[in-house]
Amino acid sequence: MGISFSQGKIYKPVVDTDLGPNSNEIYITAKVKAPRIAGFILKICVWFLELKIIGDILVYIQIKNNLIHKFVSFAKIKEPPLFAPNHAWEDPKDQHIISVNPDLSAVERIREATKCLLDPSIEKKYLNCSYIFHRWTIMDFSRAYNSGETSPLMVAKKFVSSLQDSSKPHLQMSFFIEYNIEDILEQARESTHRYQNGRPISVLDGVLIAVKDEIDCLPYSTTGGTKWLQRFRTCKKDAACIKNLRLCGAILVGKTNMHELGIGTSGINPHYGVTRNPYDPEKIAGGSSSGSAAVVSAGLCPVALGVDGGGSVRIPASLCGVVGLKPTNGRFSHDGIIPLNWTVGNVGVLAGTVEDAFIVYAALSDHLLSSCSTKVQAILNLPLLKSTNLVSDIKLAKYDKWFNHCADDIQICCDKALSILCKKHGWKTLDVTIPEIEEMRIAHYLTIGTELATSFSPHLENLNFKEIGCDTRIALCMYRSFSGRDYLNAQKIRNRQMYFHKKIFKTAEIIVAPTIGVTAYPIKDGVFKTGELDYKNGEALVRFSIAGNFLGLPAITVMVGYDRSGLPVGLQFIGKPWSEATLLHLAYAMQELCINDYKKPKIFFDVLKKD
Amino acid sequence: MGISFSQGKIYKPVVDTDLGPNSNEIYITAKVKAPRIAGFILKICVWFLELKIIGDILVYIQIKNNLIHKFVSFAKIKEPPLFAPNHAWEDPKDQHIISVNPDLSAVERIREATKCLLDPSIEKKYLNCSYIFHRWTIMDFSRAYNSGETSPLMVAKKFVSSLQDSSKPHLQMSFFIEYNIEDILEQARESTHRYQNGRPISVLDGVLIAVKDEIDCLPYSTTGGTKWLQRFRTCKKDAACIKNLRLCGAILVGKTNMHELGIGTSGINPHYGVTRNPYDPEKIAGGSSSGSAAVVSAGLCPVALGVDGGGSVRIPASLCGVVGLKPTNGRFSHDGIIPLNWTVGNVGVLAGTVEDAFIVYAALSDHLLSSCSTKVQAILNLPLLKSTNLVSDIKLAKYDKWFNHCADDIQICCDKALSILCKKHGWKTLDVTIPEIEEMRIAHYLTIGTELATSFSPHLENLNFKEIGCDTRIALCMYRSFSGRDYLNAQKIRNRQMYFHKKIFKTAEIIVAPTIGVTAYPIKDGVFKTGELDYKNGEALVRFSIAGNFLGLPAITVMVGYDRSGLPVGLQFIGKPWSEATLLHLAYAMQELCINDYKKPKIFFDVLKKD
Repeated sequence: MGISFSQGKIYKPVVDTDLGPNSNEIYITAKVKAPRIAGFILKICVWFLELKIIGDILVYIQIKNNLIHKFVSFAKIKEPPLFAPNHAWEDPKDQHIISVNPDLSAVERIREATKCLLDPSIEKKYLNCSYIFHRWTIMDFSRAYNSGETSPLMVAKKFVSSLQDSSKPHLQMSFFIEYNIEDILEQARESTHRYQNGRPISVLDGVLIAVKDEIDCLPYSTTGGTKWLQRFRTCKKDAACIKNLRLCGAILVGKTNMHELGIGTSGINPHYGVTRNPYDPEKIAGGSSSGSAAVVSAGLCPVALGVDGGGSVRIPASLCGVVGLKPTNGRFSHDGIIPLNWTVGNVGVLAGTVEDAFIVYAALSDHLLSSCSTKVQAILNLPLLKSTNLVSDIKLAKYDKWFNHCADDIQICCDKALSILCKKHGWKTLDVTIPEIEEMRIAHYLTIGTELATSFSPHLENLNFKEIGCDTRIALCMYRSFSGRDYLNAQKIRNRQMYFHKKIFKTAEIIVAPTIGVTAYPIKDGVFKTGELDYKNGEALVRFSIAGNFLGLPAITVMVGYDRSGLPVGLQFIGKPWSEATLLHLAYAMQELCINDYKKPKIFFDVLKKD
Repeated sequence: MGISFSQGKIYKPVVDTDLGPNSNEIYITAKVKAPRIAGFILKICVWFLELKIIGDILVYIQIKNNLIHKFVSFAKIKEPPLFAPNHAWEDPKDQHIISVNPDLSAVERIREATKCLLDPSIEKKYLNCSYIFHRWTIMDFSRAYNSGETSPLMVAKKFVSSLQDSSKPHLQMSFFIEYNIEDILEQARESTHRYQNGRPISVLDGVLIAVKDEIDCLPYSTTGGTKWLQRFRTCKKDAACIKNLRLCGAILVGKTNMHELGIGTSGINPHYGVTRNPYDPEKIAGGSSSGSAAVVSAGLCPVALGVDGGGSVRIPASLCGVVGLKPTNGRFSHDGIIPLNWTVGNVGVLAGTVEDAFIVYAALSDHLLSSCSTKVQAILNLPLLKSTNLVSDIKLAKYDKWFNHCADDIQICCDKALSILCKKHGWKTLDVTIPEIEEMRIAHYLTIGTELATSFSPHLENLNFKEIGCDTRIALCMYRSFSGRDYLNAQKIRNRQMYFHKKIFKTAEIIVAPTIGVTAYPIKDGVFKTGELDYKNGEALVRFSIAGNFLGLPAITVMVGYDRSGLPVGLQFIGKPWSEATLLHLAYAMQELCINDYKKPKIFFDVLKKD
């Protein structure tokens, strides 16, 4: 039948694979064979790839060159496919974790969460040490509103004027796709009114939250970073996560910019502009939740929502120096999110501090799990975020070859942060081998690609292709070519990886790795109109993110320092299913050690400060 | 991108679909556009389809002609995909159902099951009315062994000589792919010894059970009906279902013939012969569990095991006039079954009577379900199979257009049986509409095809294609062509159907339909060496089976009469998840009404009778 399976990798049974430090599993570094292109050359590429037969051949060559045939299409894998990264509910009853009644409302949940925060030493440090840079936290806003120092309306007005400043020709930060000033001010007025009456709903009342334009949030349409999706998919009501935030009184300030359809991680969007990095506006902010990371980094909001299907929350968070939390698959409801995929994406939280990610995590954790007996509500476990109450015995699994496969500055920075962290708390790293990381990346790529193509192909007939960015068009050409067998073999690899990771989690609470392989890279001139194709940097950005998505594991990134150009570096903790409390606990401890060295971004707006 | 999605069906949201009797949903009859071919013409077809580019084009045309593009590939479906038909555990605590402790051993489980059977009236009828044809049941064997009337060894010897007779040139029934006389007799000797010592293990001790050659059973290799699979996949131990039977003392008598790789339902196997129908040896036995149905029909064994991925137990059971039970997905362990697919196939039971299917069902029901909290063992619910203890209020959902879409004789026979059944017990039929049945058949075809191709493509490079049957080669050409989008859209249709069926099951306990659209059709001359391609009859055979597989629902077929040529007709009950007890209850009631009219097959071996 004309196919040579001899090109395919023969996977050995998972049980025969050694996950110890001296395993003979080879760490494969991706050999991405595709040049970085933009502008006219990118257009030519699109033209060729969309040709009927020549295009198919070119796609075939491209796929073959990038090991897809070898690692997936023609691979021999004994394990059955695992289609969805759903996890049986487990209740990690660790030390210093408080379990909260799952029937509590969002308002009650964050009330419980704030009890875990009260730490006078932190409060004092934040308020009195003017030489330390810090972003205002939810608690700062809450205190300022309660004390009458400022009001949600004043903050909202400051936000709007700052946002307008950020869009001026000399900045062009391209943070937002859409925002409605009247809607923002109206929410702010209502919140202000509540404070004036002494009845704020929660600590989130009047707090500004930006929303990735992949999440339904009235009164906006949901573009997914495109110029056309809103014509086919109307936003009729708030997504479940938005409902929770509104119930708590938060002010939803508009829809942030994103990589078109979430297919890339640079945040270079030819329709709504290239989101710039507040630490260096000549550099990318990352993606696909570009605007959500950038607005938090730039001080416009303490928190923003993103969606993470392949690192899309953690990558821009790391590039922009903020916290990014991707929960366990199933922890937050996925209702009201554009179906860009069905088995890898989750709503995530971007925040200036771990404490804020924690509060919003508590607000969004209301999801019901379908179990074999009845519907079970995942219990919200809250860690104590107090520097004096840290757990003493945590083991962090570390795969050196993978950990060190990043830019020197990142490696040095992450390694240093990790050893200080372990030393301070008596925690230990455990050397392990995580096999087939590159294979997993490719399997995830095939999965998310097939799912995206299935979701969107039906719309394409009604589209003028000029409405679609060039990199998206190329991606769709690739995705369309994936076979049913590709998809199923990718799911077999998912099964293998689930086995490997579960086995590692029997020996360690956490897997630790950098968040990204490169820090923010320059925005080149040619990319503004056409977008850019840069698989190489793309690979370096997603390299450490895949397990979170493909296996539905919770993960958090926290800033641990800067590279020599002053660009942020994030360290990532990847946890067992449902172990967000432990993750937040670790991330908080990490932040505690680094926060005094945090630097202010070049572009920063202090919305809480009165002019 | 060169694809016209305007050919695709736009599915309306499931919630807008009317499932009532007056629904305006159109019942689509399959328009299978492929001639029935065999012999030289079939070989030519294979040659063309395996050509590199011409073959691809021919496959494309074939797929397009058969509505695959319209109903699946280019369809617009809003629902997300549902990948596996797993069901949350429910305990249908109905009247007259006894729940058995799930921790019981197989031996203890069937001891409980036999308590539900004791019905002196039946026993009497079976033993004294020589004018009524009936197959010996497990209880008959057990009584005969216990009384010393005969012994397992005598029966085994009779079995072996009958089997050898069935293979003689004038019969050539092609029941088995492999059997080992020494192994059979050794098992029989051990069992006989146990009876002699007055210590039989269970009612299954010494009972002959045949096993489809898709199930691992020592000392045999597992061919899957091929000439080559055993070279790549060694049978190292018994499948889980076989272990259960051995524990109960059953004699495993060898591996029955099957349609190659289970890809067809005729049972025409070019490598191991065409399994002939005991009711008319010039007609097919059906498949893919051909031999398992035929040996039970022909009286060689009271019970055989099959595997049902697209009706493969129920279809041959119906064609050969025996009982076929496909349990809820997850009820029996799938360990030790060839991975022909991952999301539609289940081990099933073929038996001469409902009582025997029931006993073996009890023996095999040991499966653990993974729930959100812990592993849960599905509780074995046993119905009382006593004619005096039938439940009085059962509603049977019936979709007339579908029910009547079969040969006249089948329709008349099934309709008559159903009305007598309802009249006798005061049960009611409920008119419903099950939408998109043909769409579901195509979605299932894409699913099982993609899974099979993924499972077996890696072996093909090491094969001489002449070792593979022509119809299998053509099927693999088709299956290979399915895209990732095809697969995902098929899973979306699975989700829709799950919704429809669950909604119907809120109003009725059971869905009732014929088991097959045509009775056993003639074996044509040209098929013996090449196999046969007959999509039209294939469609008519699987038409009523798909929900059982695609949605993982339990289903049972029971013989209700004969067509004008004297060929058996089966009626099918499809149940809610985990409702096997109710199904068996109904099937038993149905059998009670028909059993006095059962006719002896032309080919019949009475292994219990002394010569």
